[in-house]
Amino acid sequence: MEYDLIIIGGGPGGYLAAERSGHAGLKVLLIEKRKIGGVCLNEGCIPSKTFLNSAKIYEYATHGEKYGVTSTEVNFDHKKVVTRKNKVVRTLTAGIKANLKAANVTIIEEVAIIEGKDGVNYIVNVNGEKFTAPRLIIASGSTAIIPSIKGMIEGIESGFVLTNREIFDLQEIPKQLVIVGGGVIGLEMAAYFNTVGSQVTVIEMLDHIAGENDRDVSTILKNVLEKKGVTFRLLAKVTETKSTSVMFESDGKVEEIECTKVLLSIGRKPATEALGLETICVELDRASIKTDSRCRTNIPNVYAVGDVNGVFMLAHVAYREAEVAVNNILGKKDIMRYGAIPSIIYTNPEVGAVGETEATAKLKGIDYKLVNIPMMYSGRYVAENEGGTDICKVLVDTKYNKIIGCHMIGSYSSEIIFSVAMMIEQELRIDDIKEFVFPHPTVGEVIREAIFKF
Amino acid sequence: MEYDLIIIGGGPGGYLAAERSGHAGLKVLLIEKRKIGGVCLNEGCIPSKTFLNSAKIYEYATHGEKYGVTSTEVNFDHKKVVTRKNKVVRTLTAGIKANLKAANVTIIEEVAIIEGKDGVNYIVNVNGEKFTAPRLIIASGSTAIIPSIKGMIEGIESGFVLTNREIFDLQEIPKQLVIVGGGVIGLEMAAYFNTVGSQVTVIEMLDHIAGENDRDVSTILKNVLEKKGVTFRLLAKVTETKSTSVMFESDGKVEEIECTKVLLSIGRKPATEALGLETICVELDRASIKTDSRCRTNIPNVYAVGDVNGVFMLAHVAYREAEVAVNNILGKKDIMRYGAIPSIIYTNPEVGAVGETEATAKLKGIDYKLVNIPMMYSGRYVAENEGGTDICKVLVDTKYNKIIGCHMIGSYSSEIIFSVAMMIEQELRIDDIKEFVFPHPTVGEVIREAIFKF
Repeated sequence: MEYDLIIIGGGPGGYLAAERSGHAGLKVLLIEKRKIGGVCLNEGCIPSKTFLNSAKIYEYATHGEKYGVTSTEVNFDHKKVVTRKNKVVRTLTAGIKANLKAANVTIIEEVAIIEGKDGVNYIVNVNGEKFTAPRLIIASGSTAIIPSIKGMIEGIESGFVLTNREIFDLQEIPKQLVIVGGGVIGLEMAAYFNTVGSQVTVIEMLDHIAGENDRDVSTILKNVLEKKGVTFRLLAKVTETKSTSVMFESDGKVEEIECTKVLLSIGRKPATEALGLETICVELDRASIKTDSRCRTNIPNVYAVGDVNGVFMLAHVAYREAEVAVNNILGKKDIMRYGAIPSIIYTNPEVGAVGETEATAKLKGIDYKLVNIPMMYSGRYVAENEGGTDICKVLVDTKYNKIIGCHMIGSYSSEIIFSVAMMIEQELRIDDIKEFVFPHPTVGEVIREAIFKF
Repeated sequence: MEYDLIIIGGGPGGYLAAERSGHAGLKVLLIEKRKIGGVCLNEGCIPSKTFLNSAKIYEYATHGEKYGVTSTEVNFDHKKVVTRKNKVVRTLTAGIKANLKAANVTIIEEVAIIEGKDGVNYIVNVNGEKFTAPRLIIASGSTAIIPSIKGMIEGIESGFVLTNREIFDLQEIPKQLVIVGGGVIGLEMAAYFNTVGSQVTVIEMLDHIAGENDRDVSTILKNVLEKKGVTFRLLAKVTETKSTSVMFESDGKVEEIECTKVLLSIGRKPATEALGLETICVELDRASIKTDSRCRTNIPNVYAVGDVNGVFMLAHVAYREAEVAVNNILGKKDIMRYGAIPSIIYTNPEVGAVGETEATAKLKGIDYKLVNIPMMYSGRYVAENEGGTDICKVLVDTKYNKIIGCHMIGSYSSEIIFSVAMMIEQELRIDDIKEFVFPHPTVGEVIREAIFKF
C-alpha cells in the first residue's frame, strides 16, 4: 500500500504530525506499536496530572485549617483515582483518534520495521505486510532506562520494581516506596505517594534533585517535600535490588532500605532499536537520531521528531518539531528554535522554568544580571499561601537588557511560565516588559515585580 | 512644607506613583485619608481573593468524591477567614509602607483638600497645615454607588445593607444574602457566600450577569453558579429595602425577598467630591477627571490616575497609569495604551478576558473571525475538571490575521489571560503564535488549540 507519508510512533510528535499533514491533504499512515497517545498520554504527563490533582485536593482537605477549613475524617481512594485516570486517558485518546480520522489518517496499531528503500519509496513492514511512502517521520519516542544493577531485571519481572509504565496502574498505595532518581518523574511521584500515605525515600546520585533546574529552586522544592515527609538520599547510588529491599552506597557505606515497591526513574533513552533504521542508514548520535533545525535526519525525506531525536524529551517540543517537520515536507520553510522551551514540575508547589539558568549562562559565557525575589511580592500569593517560601528568579542579558531565563517555584508556575517563554522567544527587553499590564492580583505579577528590580 | 510632588490617594495608583517617583529622586508627599493600599488592598481585590481561596479549599474538601477524596465532616470557620484576611492585608500594607519608606516618601494619613495655586505651586491643606508642590497626582479612587432607593440609607446605617467596605468584616455567614448587582464584585461574593452556606440571590437589572464580559462566558458562569445553588433574578430592579427584606420589580410584578443581609454592588463612581478640584479648575466628565493618554488633566502638571479618571476601574490599570504619569513628570515620554487590559472574575471557575468581545468588535466595525472551543481541548483541563463545561473564545482581525480578543472561563484563566494580553499588545498574527512552544500539559494550551482552528 502506498502513502505520501508514513509516521512511525503515535505519541505527541507522531499523532500531531499525522493530523497536520493529513489536514494538508497528504495520504498518511500512522503506525503505533502500543497505544495512540504514546507515553505522554498513557504513561506520563496526563496520568501524573490526574494523580497529582487528586493529591492536591486531598492535601487541601487534610491541611485546610490555616484557611478555615477543618475535616474530621478524610479518606483517599487510590483505586478510584486509577479508574478515573483510565477514563481521562480514554477520553483524550478518543479525541486524538477523532482528530486523526477527520484528517483522513490511517492508523495501524502494530510494530513497524523499516526494510529499506525501493526507488524513492521507503518500505515499512508491518506484520509481513509492506507499506511504502517517499517520506518518513520517525517519532518512536523513548523508554525508561533500566540500569544494569543486580536484581533489577528480576525486580521488574516480579513487579517489585516499577517504571512509569507500571506505576500508574498500581492498585494499592505502597507502604514504603523507594524512588530511584530525583528528576521530574521521580519528584512528581514522590509528591503524590507521600501525600496519599506512602513513606517515600528518593535515592539520587547527584548532590541535588530536579536535574538541570535552577539550584535555589530545587533546594526549596527539596525542603518543602522533606517537610511534608519525603526522605532524600543524595549522592547515593543503588547497587542492588533484592526482593523486599534496595541496597545503596552513600558516603562509602552500603545501606539497605526495606520497601514495598521501587520506582525506577533515572532517565529515558530514545527508542531507536529494532526499527530497521540501519537499513536506510539513518545516522545516530549514541541512541538519538541526529537531526538538524528542520528535524531532518541525514537521509533525504526522513525526519525525526520528539524524544527519539534526544534534543528535549518533552511532549510540547515534540508537538512543535512535528509541525516543523510537516511544514518542511509541505515546502514551507520552518525551523525549530530551542531557546524558549518551558519545562514544569507539577509538584505542590509547582516549578516552572524557561531559558538559561545561572549555570548554563556561565557555561555559555553570557554576561547576565539576576533578580531573585520571594513569591510573597505577589498579593495573590500571600492571600493563598500561608507561610510560603517560594521564589522567582529572572535572568537578563547585560549587553542587550533582554530577558534570557526565568525559574520559579510556587502556585500556578505551570500556567505562568509560558508568558516568560513568549518574552524570551520575542527577545523582549526590560523596558518592553515594563509597559505590559499584568492583571492584579495574580501570582504572575511576580515577573513584573522582578523586572522592575533590574 | 514644600515637595516636588504631592499625591492624593494611597491606593494602587497613588502608592505606586509615590514609590516610582521617590526612587527617581523626587521629594514626594503621599496623602491617604483612610488606609494605605486603598480599596484594592483593604476592601477589594485582596480580601476577596483571601475569602475565595478558603471557599475553594472548602469546595475541594466537600466535593472531592469524583477525585477519590471523601470527607465525613467538614467545617468552615468564617471568623478565622476574616482574621486571616486581616493578617494578609497587614502583611501587604507593611510591604507597601516599607517600599515607600525606601523611596523616601512622606506619608500622611489624613484628608487632603486642594486650595488653589501660589505661583507654580499647588496648595494642599491637611488638617489646617499647608503643603505645596509644583506637581499633583490625583489618585483618590472610587466609592460604591449608593442608589437613591427607599430605605437604602437607613439600611446601610443599620448594617442590614453592606457595600464592599463592610462585607469583608462580616463575622457571621448570613443565612440569606441578597446581592444587588451581578457584576464582578457581586459574583465573587455570591460565589463565596454560596459555597460556605448562605442562600444567595443576585438581583440584576440587565438580562445577563458579568457586565461587558462575553455573553457565552457569562451564560456558562451563570449556569455553573446556579447549579451550585445561587439564585439569579435578571431584568429585576430593586425598589425598596426594608428592615429584613428587599422589594424588587420583575416582569411588571413587585416581589419581596426576606434576607439576613444585603450586599450592594451595582457599580462604583470616581471619588472627585470634596477634594477642592474646582479651586484649580480641573475638568471633569460627569464624576470622572478627564485625562489624556499621558494621564494629564487639563491643568498643567496635574495628573489623574486610577479609578478617579474613570477609564478602567482596575488596580492594574492604575499601576500602569501611575508609571505613565511619573514617567511624563520625569520628562520620559510614555503613553497609556488601553487595548490589551486583562480582566478577571475570581469565581470557581474563573473568568479571564482581554481585548475585543464580539459586541465591541461589531460596534467598532471590525471584521473579525471567531473560534469558540471547549476547555476540554486541554488535556490538563480534562485531568482536573470532571464534567467541566468551560470554553475559550478567541477573536482574530480578518484583515491582518492578528489576535484582538480572548474570553475564557475555566481553571487558571486568571493566570493564563496575561499571555494573551501580551499577544494583543504585541499585535501578533496567527502565524506568529503558531510558532510558540506552549508547555504541555497546561490549560493555557487551549489558546494554541484555538489558534490552530483559524
